[in-house]
Amino acid sequence: MTVKKPGGLAGIEAGQTAISTVGKNGKGLTYRGYSIHDLALQGTFEETAYLLIHGELPDEQQLADYKQKLISSRKLPNELANLLELLPAHAHPMEVLLAGCSVLGTLEPENEERTAGDIADRLLALTGPMLLYWYYYHHNGLRVQTETPDESLAGHFLHLLHGSPPEELAVKAFDVSLTLYAEHEFNASTFASRVTASTMSNYYSCITTGIGTLRGNLHGGANEAVMELITKFQTPDEAEAGILQMLAEKQLIMGFGHRVYTVSDPRSDIIKGLAQQLSALADDGHLYALSERIEQVMRREKNLFPNLDFYSAAAYHFMGIPTCLFTPVFVLARTAGWTAHIMEQRSNNRIIRPIAAYTGPDQLTWASVDRRRPPTEESR
Amino acid sequence: MTVKKPGGLAGIEAGQTAISTVGKNGKGLTYRGYSIHDLALQGTFEETAYLLIHGELPDEQQLADYKQKLISSRKLPNELANLLELLPAHAHPMEVLLAGCSVLGTLEPENEERTAGDIADRLLALTGPMLLYWYYYHHNGLRVQTETPDESLAGHFLHLLHGSPPEELAVKAFDVSLTLYAEHEFNASTFASRVTASTMSNYYSCITTGIGTLRGNLHGGANEAVMELITKFQTPDEAEAGILQMLAEKQLIMGFGHRVYTVSDPRSDIIKGLAQQLSALADDGHLYALSERIEQVMRREKNLFPNLDFYSAAAYHFMGIPTCLFTPVFVLARTAGWTAHIMEQRSNNRIIRPIAAYTGPDQLTWASVDRRRPPTEESR
Ligand SMILES: CC(C)(COP(=O)(O)OP(=O)(O)OC[C@H]1O[C@@H](n2cnc3c(N)ncnc32)[C@H](O)[C@@H]1OP(=O)(O)O)[C@@H](O)C(=O)NCCC(=O)NCCS
Ligand SMILES: CC(C)(COP(=O)(O)OP(=O)(O)OC[C@H]1O[C@@H](n2cnc3c(N)ncnc32)[C@H](O)[C@@H]1OP(=O)(O)O)[C@@H](O)C(=O)NCCC(=O)NCCS
Repeated sequence: MTVKKPGGLAGIEAGQTAISTVGKNGKGLTYRGYSIHDLALQGTFEETAYLLIHGELPDEQQLADYKQKLISSRKLPNELANLLELLPAHAHPMEVLLAGCSVLGTLEPENEERTAGDIADRLLALTGPMLLYWYYYHHNGLRVQTETPDESLAGHFLHLLHGSPPEELAVKAFDVSLTLYAEHEFNASTFASRVTASTMSNYYSCITTGIGTLRGNLHGGANEAVMELITKFQTPDEAEAGILQMLAEKQLIMGFGHRVYTVSDPRSDIIKGLAQQLSALADDGHLYALSERIEQVMRREKNLFPNLDFYSAAAYHFMGIPTCLFTPVFVLARTAGWTAHIMEQRSNNRIIRPIAAYTGPDQLTWASVDRRRPPTEESR
Repeated sequence: MTVKKPGGLAGIEAGQTAISTVGKNGKGLTYRGYSIHDLALQGTFEETAYLLIHGELPDEQQLADYKQKLISSRKLPNELANLLELLPAHAHPMEVLLAGCSVLGTLEPENEERTAGDIADRLLALTGPMLLYWYYYHHNGLRVQTETPDESLAGHFLHLLHGSPPEELAVKAFDVSLTLYAEHEFNASTFASRVTASTMSNYYSCITTGIGTLRGNLHGGANEAVMELITKFQTPDEAEAGILQMLAEKQLIMGFGHRVYTVSDPRSDIIKGLAQQLSALADDGHLYALSERIEQVMRREKNLFPNLDFYSAAAYHFMGIPTCLFTPVFVLARTAGWTAHIMEQRSNNRIIRPIAAYTGPDQLTWASVDRRRPPTEESR
């Protein structure tokens, strides 16, 4: 059993939201009142994105129009393509998104005609193209044409990635995973973008804050870190031994634990089921079986449960997504949630500015530079 | 008299810091124990930056080495110059810094040899060059040579800006203003970059969060907004009438008020004195007299005092700095404070992840898209 430490604003209410509940008694995970199970298993990511960004579930006509809007937003501006060519091949794709969004902000600025909601939709459509144009230019020397006839965002991404129309199961699984990743209350990246929004900064600045914050291994970066972990092992037994050793060394096991959930992550079973189906299709029981064993060990040894990132790694791997694109895919999905929170923050704003407990020295006496002694070993 | 509202984490301790005190009883504003008066009036910005980034005041040799390091870091990488040429002329310079830092992060990534402290020093040296290369390329078609023989950061910036060796008083005043802007505890941008750091994201991501958050008008953007305000008026009487009208319309007056200070901002008198000296030199009593009148009106009507941003506007104007570069100059200075906080967050980290009070709908029943009624007028 693990006990939660103080700090990190754990359990502190930093504001109000009508966008989602995370682990609330009897509510579980909901987006604007709808349960994650309904949204993920009965709806599509486009419906979830519309719900989050535009405030309610679309009816048939609204959904058709919305899909059309996303489809017609897939073309990269030339200047953005130039930027992507200029970035080095060894850049991390999260850096590509950070730079790409910053530059897009200068090309298509927020203003009265182009609102935060419009830009959010544009980013949903353009995140895949940005990533994959950069990826193929630097890895294969290709200037990829970023428009495809695919109806859904999930289909479009996988089509661009593989250069051919994707499998139905993969599209469905990817679509579900986007819905699962779309929103999660005051998680670190969303909270950080609300802080940015609270100074009345522009929309793109809030999004780049989200991207930069999501990148860390304790947050969105965990799905990549999980992949690096599980591919170290060849068999479930090896995995068990490896995890036991890491735990003995007090290492964190990526993809386990959660700040808010205490018993389980309601998204985990959904993505686990998909990972299993995809693994059967890929005829590769290896990674999936290994992941399950790690889950058992973590439950037995630490009473910790997998969070969404854990089985997302295997699922994305079976979809043929390169590991370095796992966290960027999270960005694509979470853009919907960030946007909802940025708008909500703006609609009833007060600058987010806490205070700190001071632990430093009492007032020190100034000495001009010529009268300072070289620092002693201890003061270094 | 104004009463503070709840919310915005006002008065909430979000963590510990040994870096500075803001408005603490008997301590006022200190950086690592040193009073802001000593640092600003007896020291130089390089000493403050070293203190914040490297932990203690440098002795003579350390300071000489540090200045040399900064001087030799002023050259833009070619790829960065290319990016700056590619950005549109109508971009906001804060967007230029956001894009510039993102791209620099791919060219000179953080790693074991290139630590956060090294990158901070590089950014101190390169912020001016990034801004002014972009500025002169798009406004005058010039490819500016960004290295100058100036010893200080302040001198270098003003030299690049004006294309000729700057006046002594301007260099001194600019140097002081950088020290005043360098650090301010858990202000919104610093707090946001600590949230980014808390996920274990990389240094550049923390800095882009800082830049994006500083940009808002309620925070760093205030110095630009002040300039736009004061240049609307021709005389002190006009300014008085204008401010009274804005107050009657419940508008915020930029450059006044503070979340933490309740009586005065200790930095304001220092920058006010410099603005006055520069105004005499510029033989322009106009803007300064007008600013003083606004200060009187705000004190009389709202019991509000000028914060650092208020007289910074006049001071920067008299130094010949274009208004659109005011907030970017704040970035240059605050990079030192952000860096100290990023390092401090990393040294004793727990992810910063608060919770929200839920105000949304109770669980709603799912209906598939073909069974959704078009939304009624009220539900829109
Ligand atoms: C998610 C996470 C950041 C939550 O952080 P938190 O609420 O601050 O959790 P705590 O650090 O208070 O965890 C309590 C205890 O459980 C342990 N713990 C939590 N997650 C753990 C993990 N994944 N592996 C091993 N131990 C873990 C902590 O080390 C701590 O033990 P300690 O008191 O002996 O130091 C944390 O569980 C974690 O780092 N998980 C791995 C990264 C990850 O999967 N992130 C994605 C989240 S969706
Ligand atoms: C700095 C600032 C964001 C602090 O925010 P805060 O702590 O949330 O302050 P509050 O909103 O609680 O202020 C309390 C009251 O004073 C009023 N007030 C504060 N600053 C004001 C200003 N600059 N002009 C007019 N009224 C102001 C508020 O409107 C509020 O009145 P209300 O209760 O009738 O709504 C705020 O003072 C402000 O917006 N200042 C102008 C922007 C600026 O100069 N920013 C740079 C800060 S260094």
